Amino acid sequence: MQESVLIEAFLAELPKSRLPLAGSLPCSGDDCAVFALPRGKELAVSTDICVENVHFPAHTPPCAIGARGLASAVSDLAAMGAEPLGFTLAMTLSVACEDWIKGVAKGCGIVMTATNICCVGGDLSKGLLNSLCFTVFGAVPIGKLLSRSGARPGDIIFVSGTLGDARAGLSQFLSTGKEICAVPPEDSIDFLIWRFFYPQARIALGQKLLKISAHSAIDLSDGLYIDLHRILTASGWGAKIDPEKLPRSIALRNFESDSGIAAALGGGDDYELCFTVSPESVEEVLQIGSDLGVKVSQIGVVEAQDGIRFPKGFKITSEYAGYDHFS
Amino acid sequence: MQESVLIEAFLAELPKSRLPLAGSLPCSGDDCAVFALPRGKELAVSTDICVENVHFPAHTPPCAIGARGLASAVSDLAAMGAEPLGFTLAMTLSVACEDWIKGVAKGCGIVMTATNICCVGGDLSKGLLNSLCFTVFGAVPIGKLLSRSGARPGDIIFVSGTLGDARAGLSQFLSTGKEICAVPPEDSIDFLIWRFFYPQARIALGQKLLKISAHSAIDLSDGLYIDLHRILTASGWGAKIDPEKLPRSIALRNFESDSGIAAALGGGDDYELCFTVSPESVEEVLQIGSDLGVKVSQIGVVEAQDGIRFPKGFKITSEYAGYDHFS
Repeated sequence: MQESVLIEAFLAELPKSRLPLAGSLPCSGDDCAVFALPRGKELAVSTDICVENVHFPAHTPPCAIGARGLASAVSDLAAMGAEPLGFTLAMTLSVACEDWIKGVAKGCGIVMTATNICCVGGDLSKGLLNSLCFTVFGAVPIGKLLSRSGARPGDIIFVSGTLGDARAGLSQFLSTGKEICAVPPEDSIDFLIWRFFYPQARIALGQKLLKISAHSAIDLSDGLYIDLHRILTASGWGAKIDPEKLPRSIALRNFESDSGIAAALGGGDDYELCFTVSPESVEEVLQIGSDLGVKVSQIGVVEAQDGIRFPKGFKITSEYAGYDHFS
Repeated sequence: MQESVLIEAFLAELPKSRLPLAGSLPCSGDDCAVFALPRGKELAVSTDICVENVHFPAHTPPCAIGARGLASAVSDLAAMGAEPLGFTLAMTLSVACEDWIKGVAKGCGIVMTATNICCVGGDLSKGLLNSLCFTVFGAVPIGKLLSRSGARPGDIIFVSGTLGDARAGLSQFLSTGKEICAVPPEDSIDFLIWRFFYPQARIALGQKLLKISAHSAIDLSDGLYIDLHRILTASGWGAKIDPEKLPRSIALRNFESDSGIAAALGGGDDYELCFTVSPESVEEVLQIGSDLGVKVSQIGVVEAQDGIRFPKGFKITSEYAGYDHFS
């Protein structure tokens, strides 16, 4: 099979409405894609690599590989309050399989439609493992962005959606190998696998948080405990958290022994947002959540004292420390 | 070893003068790098993946892996006449080796200094093979760029530098395993290996060609025959080429049996530019080459008739057809 056949198969599967980006030359065969930034905007850029057997099990359905990969990259734009513009995808394939590449494209298409991002270019190579490297571009108003470093003592800490589903879903998928194609009921165990396969990048929420000048934000890729720690370290403060307040899906509460608290605190791959706002902004945040149909939950408070504290009697274990590729 | 130790080792080795990009937040630990585009400019983006045993032999010195990888990506900016701004690097490592990652950073640093590009972010993961995915960003004047599709019958076809060195150098390296650290004399066989290790992205030349409205340009990644074919296909015309006029280094002429013509026509990885201009612009191009100290050679003419033609008696073989990852 020829490289060009694989590339054509990939492009043919993408949603037509998202190609091309206005004013750009995507996939035109030129060496670069070229596109303009909206007036008064700066460029936000992030790159994420997803490797088989590292970021996803080898038998993950290709549609889920594409959807998870692109959503996790776009989620970094959400955490900065950026408007998605375009992405590039550099892929290595262990085997030239047209169906596999079409599945990946289908998954990318789901996220492209949901987040309004365009494919502007890519690269394809042979490799020992399937891997996808997404680089995403977004626009933020000049001089204004959500960062990790703006949290202040007294800030209320929020998270979006529910936490821990992806970790529990990955365990479920590893033990059952079940592929989930349609959104399952929220109280079914399949719901957890679906959450691992199809995370939602919180683009609309991130942009609203930027507008109301939220103090800090991060997307939850490595788990709340480690990602909140990143906000606090960047900002120079600590926090108190109530684990009982961590939002957990019905499925997670039903199927995890501790009603899902460990998964919600330590599980990665949820790609929800964790953010802090001044107490005066709490009502506004709740209104935004209600307007967008996105659950937002208050889980704690930023404090002057370093570190993350829990209510008396709550034991924190090393499983919350997050994933390190090389340790 | 921890991921963060490897990332720190990488960043510490980069040239300080190229970090950070003015107005950006590179490597700040935030989810995205953010930077402004120069006024009146559009963004040019390209992504390139380099995989061990596919794009470079496993025992290639890490400094050469970094330099080749970044130069080949920046070369796509050169082909569009873009001014380099920044790049991201997503890496997979088979083994967590600090010296290896420092070597890669040193190689990136050489290209960063030569082409004025900044590191704005990255990602690091474990993988079965070492691989590097560079995504590069540049600026082009709004509505003005060098493309593949502007060649016209009568255009003079030029190439920069010398061709075929990288292919011959790769063969040499595969048979001798010789590592080249300093620029060798141009008539030595080591010169060819050095050309494979350290290609020059023709950034200054690309920008000058944009200024004089060259009709088309491409960088030579897969070899002159296939890359010129890409210009002609995109433009809708054909060409006549004189293989004797293909610029070849003294080393290539000395050490290849056919004085290097096959390597110059079919060899990839040179990252020189091939471009076409109207006959009226030839003097200007020669002056630009002389001003920049870059050899520019006329090798043929664009013609209305499809395909690439050679002088009578010259035999073209399948070895010029270029590399396909999956055929």
